[in-house]
Amino acid sequence: MTDYSKATPQQVRDAARKGLLVGQTSGMAQGYVQANLAVLPMNLAYDFLLFCTRNPKPCPLIEVGSEGDYLTRFIADGADIRTDIPKYRVYRDGIMTEEPLDLLELWQDDFVFFLLGCSFSFENRLMAAGVPVRHVEEKTNVPIYVTNIQCRPAGVFHGPLVVSMRPIPGRLISKAVEITSRLPAVHGSPVHIGDPSVIGIKDIGKPDFGDPVTIKPGEVPVFWACGVTPQAAALATKPDIMITHSPGHMFVGDIKDSMIQEFIYGV
Amino acid sequence: MTDYSKATPQQVRDAARKGLLVGQTSGMAQGYVQANLAVLPMNLAYDFLLFCTRNPKPCPLIEVGSEGDYLTRFIADGADIRTDIPKYRVYRDGIMTEEPLDLLELWQDDFVFFLLGCSFSFENRLMAAGVPVRHVEEKTNVPIYVTNIQCRPAGVFHGPLVVSMRPIPGRLISKAVEITSRLPAVHGSPVHIGDPSVIGIKDIGKPDFGDPVTIKPGEVPVFWACGVTPQAAALATKPDIMITHSPGHMFVGDIKDSMIQEFIYGV
Repeated sequence: MTDYSKATPQQVRDAARKGLLVGQTSGMAQGYVQANLAVLPMNLAYDFLLFCTRNPKPCPLIEVGSEGDYLTRFIADGADIRTDIPKYRVYRDGIMTEEPLDLLELWQDDFVFFLLGCSFSFENRLMAAGVPVRHVEEKTNVPIYVTNIQCRPAGVFHGPLVVSMRPIPGRLISKAVEITSRLPAVHGSPVHIGDPSVIGIKDIGKPDFGDPVTIKPGEVPVFWACGVTPQAAALATKPDIMITHSPGHMFVGDIKDSMIQEFIYGV
Repeated sequence: MTDYSKATPQQVRDAARKGLLVGQTSGMAQGYVQANLAVLPMNLAYDFLLFCTRNPKPCPLIEVGSEGDYLTRFIADGADIRTDIPKYRVYRDGIMTEEPLDLLELWQDDFVFFLLGCSFSFENRLMAAGVPVRHVEEKTNVPIYVTNIQCRPAGVFHGPLVVSMRPIPGRLISKAVEITSRLPAVHGSPVHIGDPSVIGIKDIGKPDFGDPVTIKPGEVPVFWACGVTPQAAALATKPDIMITHSPGHMFVGDIKDSMIQEFIYGV
């Protein structure tokens, strides 16, 4: 098993392209941004783009291709969306039908790719500031919950806000808010702090996705908008075809994690 | 002359709708957000939306209508884009052809409206924090310059970044950066501070739009991305038809100025 933690983003993408890397990318090319993928046909792209624009906290756009484009231009120079991710998921009419290792056969001239930010960027900053990130400590997946908060709809897309949760000691919540509020490009500040029932979460011990984590005495559950939201909204419309990365098998970009805010808002 | 400074946004829009108000909206419905208008046919809407998404500092989207919609849903409940702005400009093939008081005759079923943030929101916050805003002190228009920085292109849209300038005393620049960096929904932090020639401005005394302002000893020119950028990029493509507000004749929304950041990023 090759250790990709110190690899460059280009080396990780090359390995995925050559089929040498088919596993999750967590911890690879440390210090560089990883992104969620959504691919939709052009006839749904405008509504999806508008949905992301109307819901910037759960749907932070990092890069959107032009119709038919499969090469990235901004987050990396010329990475191939069809091959440079270790594993993909294909949904037809809202049902997952296959998990291919590339999209060379599946790519259509009317496809548009969307790369969306993930919480990876802000988790590193939290930990660097001494704020614990429990699911990293416990080596599990972050707990994710569907809330009773509705996103702003756009065209055919609508659906509930999905959130991730990290338990934070009371004295460190201010710091967690301060740090993430400065990062609107990767979900921004928490959308809710405290009582899970207020946002429609019945049992904090039973997340809808990911794994439950320990909440210690004196800690409060803190909820951030989650990148699962746009995929869930897209799938709810049951498009003829939609392609995403396989969970945990992310796109690794050439932008440093610490520069993501500047990258998105730069001119 | 009616004094609209203490009027509600609804009263200002009603007056514009009834033709009682045909002048600039500066200072009206104080404390409420004012927005730039761009109306484009649907065949250009995707590229324009993508251009705004790729250039969030100059192009902060406040609300985008669905195809054919002329009623706002978010910034105000049911305001009519066709009538509730005091004066409009119609551009055909990139040339201004008329300045109508409403769009009732001109509206097309394939039109999409875009409302974009303006610096009004952050100027009030600067002044409240003791940072001088020179063009307000001198009762002129803010000086605006075309730079040599290119925006990220999107489809048919491309063009240079346009900036506004406010001279700030050296000891208050940090405060101006701190305040505006917390407001990415209305242009965010400055894009350049200091030597104008670095960003292609030959003569700070001769702005491309607006009026020159006094720069006092110890003050440094501070440049923010400007909402003229997206309109300039749109007009550069010479669309068959494009409609904007007439300069200074803004859309007045029901959202409080002080809540614009929360409004845009709210879920």
